[in-house]
Amino acid sequence: MRGTVLYGERDVRFEDLAEPAIIEPTDAIISLPVTCICGSDLWPYRGIQAIRRPVPMGHEYCGIVEEVGRGVTSVKPGQFVIGSFFASDNTCPHCRHGYQTSCQQREPVVGAQAPRMRVPLADGTLVPTRDVPDADMIPSMLALSDVMGTGWFAADAAEVKPGATVVVVGDGAVGLLGVLSAKQMGAGRIIAMSRHESRQKLARQFGATDIVTERGDEGIERVKELTGGVGAGSVLECVGTQEAMQQAIRCTRPGGAVGYVGVPHGVTLDGADLFFRHVRLLGGPAPVRRKLPELIGLVLNGTINPGKVFDLELPLEQVADGYLAMDQRQAIKTLLRP
Amino acid sequence: MRGTVLYGERDVRFEDLAEPAIIEPTDAIISLPVTCICGSDLWPYRGIQAIRRPVPMGHEYCGIVEEVGRGVTSVKPGQFVIGSFFASDNTCPHCRHGYQTSCQQREPVVGAQAPRMRVPLADGTLVPTRDVPDADMIPSMLALSDVMGTGWFAADAAEVKPGATVVVVGDGAVGLLGVLSAKQMGAGRIIAMSRHESRQKLARQFGATDIVTERGDEGIERVKELTGGVGAGSVLECVGTQEAMQQAIRCTRPGGAVGYVGVPHGVTLDGADLFFRHVRLLGGPAPVRRKLPELIGLVLNGTINPGKVFDLELPLEQVADGYLAMDQRQAIKTLLRP
Repeated sequence: MRGTVLYGERDVRFEDLAEPAIIEPTDAIISLPVTCICGSDLWPYRGIQAIRRPVPMGHEYCGIVEEVGRGVTSVKPGQFVIGSFFASDNTCPHCRHGYQTSCQQREPVVGAQAPRMRVPLADGTLVPTRDVPDADMIPSMLALSDVMGTGWFAADAAEVKPGATVVVVGDGAVGLLGVLSAKQMGAGRIIAMSRHESRQKLARQFGATDIVTERGDEGIERVKELTGGVGAGSVLECVGTQEAMQQAIRCTRPGGAVGYVGVPHGVTLDGADLFFRHVRLLGGPAPVRRKLPELIGLVLNGTINPGKVFDLELPLEQVADGYLAMDQRQAIKTLLRP
Repeated sequence: MRGTVLYGERDVRFEDLAEPAIIEPTDAIISLPVTCICGSDLWPYRGIQAIRRPVPMGHEYCGIVEEVGRGVTSVKPGQFVIGSFFASDNTCPHCRHGYQTSCQQREPVVGAQAPRMRVPLADGTLVPTRDVPDADMIPSMLALSDVMGTGWFAADAAEVKPGATVVVVGDGAVGLLGVLSAKQMGAGRIIAMSRHESRQKLARQFGATDIVTERGDEGIERVKELTGGVGAGSVLECVGTQEAMQQAIRCTRPGGAVGYVGVPHGVTLDGADLFFRHVRLLGGPAPVRRKLPELIGLVLNGTINPGKVFDLELPLEQVADGYLAMDQRQAIKTLLRP
């Protein structure tokens, strides 16, 4: 088969690869009707996160089980399944506490920008649907694999409660789905920080009540103005830079919480500053697995449509164009069809 | 009157000072039957926290109201009152959210190592008791003003729940009262990290089930062993150094929480490290005022006796000896009698 490999800065190739195969008895092989590019793929694409050798790309996936190892008992060939970017056993103490992305057996899932892939720890990782979903629901199912689950975790970590005032820093797919998640959790006011018209529009569709176009100190000032000088009780940081993290912390009222899901790159926190701000912090790779069953239900009954974040669709072989469009912010998120 | 002034590193003087007086109409003057030295007083005493001019010391207090400004309505002369180290109006949005130490009108309270003192924002700051407590309860009342309220906030910020496994880093008065607080909140297991026999003994009296004498990597290993390799769900950081903070973070299981109340000195956190550990953080100057009414009730009905942390008692004029004893760890906490 042919799949996607990153060779170095802005060097994405679609090339011949070995067919995925069962390695461990707990593996499954799935075929992918659709796949996509993640905002976090841009870190190595842009050379900000160094890679030592060519790496197969893609970690968001849903599809049809083709084959399972002899140890797999909970999914079978022909089923439609969704998983997360970290495989997990879903039975260890960390999984039982709901932090499957810190599973004691955690293993990254790679190679999803291809027609087929191997998923380790299939029993713990994959959630099957009762039936194969209609084609028009597949993009939303794919979004659950990472960006929707991550937006939800940002809102959960930021302790969004009914009636809450929420700020979302970052208008990529995760930030936009953070808006959607906060809305689902009953937020009363959702302030999206965004400078891009198409993203502002989607943020409003997902439930944003206010848009702040300013950044840095001006952005913080604007949030303070909108909240009567107090700040927000819940702030979602969906970028991963020092600037975005500081913006998030400084938009939060004392006793409020920041949920941060942008993978931190060069982020340093001063203990005393954080102390005197009384800001609560929780972040990390989203334990998507925890919420998957519930989110699948919300997609199937039409409550949420996170697939709206895909605003560019390309054949998989044009994957390099998909990266370029996201890099240049011409697309929020690229859907690829093998 | 004579009171306590810090002139520089290890230079504490008990000297003539002006009598405290009403400055703002919202002030109260109280007389202090007892007073004490705080672990946080040792930062400037040891020269770690620089002072620019001689400063009146002491911020823990309870006593009898002598005089109130014309704007004070909720306390009156003759009443016994307790307050916190930050004066607060108890009406602003931050106070209403329970973060009175981030009050929009916040003002430090100083000069409590003296026979009398001025307390600003008396209505918001002072909590009166119905009657003047018995003499033997006064040390516990004094402890509520800071160390007990701070130990409680550490446990609250660390989200201690019934049955929880808790680690307490730091065996000073705050750490010991963090043990007591965790016990009150129903913790199932409380691991106190302490290398001092007298403190270990008090920790056990307050509810510690395990003592870990090792520090740093060894201490973390020991906590991991005691928790089946998982780590604790709630960790209280009651020191304020980089070493203690790292120890606290690394003793916490993914999804667990660190409540940090040691004033951070030179503490820096790496965003990516925190992210991949899935550790929740909340710290800050404890909003003692939030919990004061409840804690007063627990002392009066004999449920808690936080005054046990006072293991040295001196006449106020020997305040310098009290600092020295705490500096050299010969005393946990010094009670002073004017």
